Amino acid sequence: MSETYLSSGVSISAGEETVSKIKSFAKSTFNSNVLSDIGLFGAFYDASFKNFKHPVLVSSVDGVGTKLKVAIAMDKHDTIGQDLVNHCVNDIAVCGAEPLFFLDYVAFGKLIPDKAAKIIEGFAIACKNNNCSLIGGETAEMPGLYEENDYDLSGTIVGVVEKEKIINGKEIKRGDVLIGFQSNGLHTNGYSLARKVLSNIDLHSTPQNFELTLGDELLKIHKSYLSLINALKNNFSIKGFSHITGGGIVGNTLRIIPKGLSLKIDWNGWQLPEIFKLIKTSGNISDEEMRSVFNIGIGLIAVVDKNEVENILRTSESLNEKGIVIGEVV
Amino acid sequence: MSETYLSSGVSISAGEETVSKIKSFAKSTFNSNVLSDIGLFGAFYDASFKNFKHPVLVSSVDGVGTKLKVAIAMDKHDTIGQDLVNHCVNDIAVCGAEPLFFLDYVAFGKLIPDKAAKIIEGFAIACKNNNCSLIGGETAEMPGLYEENDYDLSGTIVGVVEKEKIINGKEIKRGDVLIGFQSNGLHTNGYSLARKVLSNIDLHSTPQNFELTLGDELLKIHKSYLSLINALKNNFSIKGFSHITGGGIVGNTLRIIPKGLSLKIDWNGWQLPEIFKLIKTSGNISDEEMRSVFNIGIGLIAVVDKNEVENILRTSESLNEKGIVIGEVV
Repeated sequence: MSETYLSSGVSISAGEETVSKIKSFAKSTFNSNVLSDIGLFGAFYDASFKNFKHPVLVSSVDGVGTKLKVAIAMDKHDTIGQDLVNHCVNDIAVCGAEPLFFLDYVAFGKLIPDKAAKIIEGFAIACKNNNCSLIGGETAEMPGLYEENDYDLSGTIVGVVEKEKIINGKEIKRGDVLIGFQSNGLHTNGYSLARKVLSNIDLHSTPQNFELTLGDELLKIHKSYLSLINALKNNFSIKGFSHITGGGIVGNTLRIIPKGLSLKIDWNGWQLPEIFKLIKTSGNISDEEMRSVFNIGIGLIAVVDKNEVENILRTSESLNEKGIVIGEVV
Repeated sequence: MSETYLSSGVSISAGEETVSKIKSFAKSTFNSNVLSDIGLFGAFYDASFKNFKHPVLVSSVDGVGTKLKVAIAMDKHDTIGQDLVNHCVNDIAVCGAEPLFFLDYVAFGKLIPDKAAKIIEGFAIACKNNNCSLIGGETAEMPGLYEENDYDLSGTIVGVVEKEKIINGKEIKRGDVLIGFQSNGLHTNGYSLARKVLSNIDLHSTPQNFELTLGDELLKIHKSYLSLINALKNNFSIKGFSHITGGGIVGNTLRIIPKGLSLKIDWNGWQLPEIFKLIKTSGNISDEEMRSVFNIGIGLIAVVDKNEVENILRTSESLNEKGIVIGEVV
C-alpha cells in the first residue's frame, strides 16, 4: 500500500480550505499599516510610529486554558478566539499600550475547516473590536497529540506605547487606593478546578439564580478593558493597572507593587457573583483557594492616588463600568 | 472533601518553580533593547530603530508539528525549542528581516518543572544563536487536553527590515535561477507521515547507511539559515528566498513567484538523503507525495539572476553551505 500524508492523518486539502476560509476574516482586520497579504513567510507591519517620540513595543502571549474543554463540550467555537484576543489585549493595555497586531496558533487533532473558520472568525471579531490587525497565524493538524475533537490555541499580541507613558507601578506608594472593576465571569482562569467541581451539573441546565445555562455562563467572553483603560489613563494619573488572571487579585496586583509594599484587600467589599458561589459550594473550596485561583468578580484593578478616587469612579460609571474601592497599598 | 486547584490537576507551585527556573535562561538572551524584566503583564522592547529610515516589523508564528512526539518518545526535550526558534527565524529572514524578539507558548498535560526548563533552555539557546531576545512566554498546565507526558508548543517571532530592503519576490522574472541549499533532515515537517511509515523501526536502532540512530536523525535540529541569508543579501541582489517547510519545494517557492510564472525543478539535480530514502521505501510513497510533504534535502532556496549564480555558489561554499542549481523560473 502506498502511504500519503492523508493516510497518516494530515489533510493538506483541509489545510488549504481552511486558509482560504480565514483569509477574508483576517483581511477584514487590516489597516494601512499592514503591508503584506496572507501567504508570505512573514507578516509585515509598518513601524514608522510617526506620532511617537520614543515608541516601545509591548507584547504578550497567552492561551485560554481548559475553557477550551467547555467550548468543545458545548460545540461552540466562535467565542474562544475572542477570549484569547481580549485576554492578550488586557495584558498589554494595563502597561499603557495600544494593540497593533495579533498572531494566532491553533492545533487540532483533526482539522475541520468549518470549525477552524469559526475559531478564527472569533479572533477577527475581537481584533476588530480592539482596533488590532490579525496579521498571521498557524493552523496545525496533529493526529496522535490531540483527540480528534480537541484543539488548543495560543496567541501573541504586539502593541506600542510612548516610553514616558509606560504604566508599570513604579510610583505606587503607601496609602494608594485599589479600585476594582467587575469581571463578567471566570474570564479564562480556573477552568480546570471549575470543571472538576461542576462536573455533576449538566452544562445545558440553568442553576438556581443563574440567568444563563451553566455552559453559556462558563463561555461568557473574557471582557476587554481597553476602552476603560484608555479613558482612565487619558484623564487621570493611573499609577498601575492589574489584569486579574491566574494568581487572583493579590498574585497579579503584586506584579506591579514596588518591593517593600503590600496589599490590604477588603474581601467583603463586593458580592461574590453567583458562578463563583456555585463553584465554591460545589467543591467546598476555601476562601484562600478561591482568591488565588479565580478573579472572584474583579477583572481589572487600578492603583490610584486616594485623591483621584471619586473622579475615577464617576468617569467609570459614565462608561457603564462599575468601580469599587477594594483595598489599599500598605 | 475540599477541592483545590492542585486536586483538579493544576499545580501553582509547579508553575512558580518553572518560572523561576526559566528566568535566567530568558535573561541570558536580553540586550539593551529589552526594557522590562520577566513577570510584568507585557514585555517591553525598544522600537526607536534609529538605524532605519522606514522600519517594518516582520512577524511569524509556528509550531513544530508531531516532531514533538519523537522528542517525547526519546525523552529528549532540549532541542525541540531550538527547532521552533530556527523555523521562525528562517520564516522572517527569507523576507530580509533581522530577528528582534521571540515569545513562546508551552502547554503540558502535567507540568514538570525540569522538563519545562529543558524545553525553554532550547528556546534560549537558539535565540542567542540568532541574536534574538526571548522576552515572553506562557507555560500552561492543561490536564484532560494533553496526555500526562505530552505537550505542545508554539512560538512567535518579531523582526525588523528596512522597507526598501524587503525581499518579496516581486522582481523575479522568467529565466531566473533557483539555488537550493541543503537541509540537515526533515527540519519540522512531515513527521506525522514519517512516524507512521517508520513505526516498525526502533528509534534507538541505527538503520543501514545512517550515521545516527533513527531517533537522533529525526530529532536533528531544524537548521537556521540566518547567517547564510545575511551573507547573500548583503553581497548580492537576491530576488527571493523560500524556506522549504510543509508544501515542499514547489508549494513554498510559489508563495514568492509573481503570478503568471511557474517553476521547473530538476528533481535529479541532487541526491535524496538517506532519511528520505528510508521514508520513501518504508511507506512506498510516490515521488509526488514526497515532494509536497518533505523538503527532501533542500531547506532554503534563493531565486537569483542567472549571471549571479557562480559568485553566489562560491560565497556559499566559503560559508560551508553547499548550494546547488535545482531549477529555474519559467
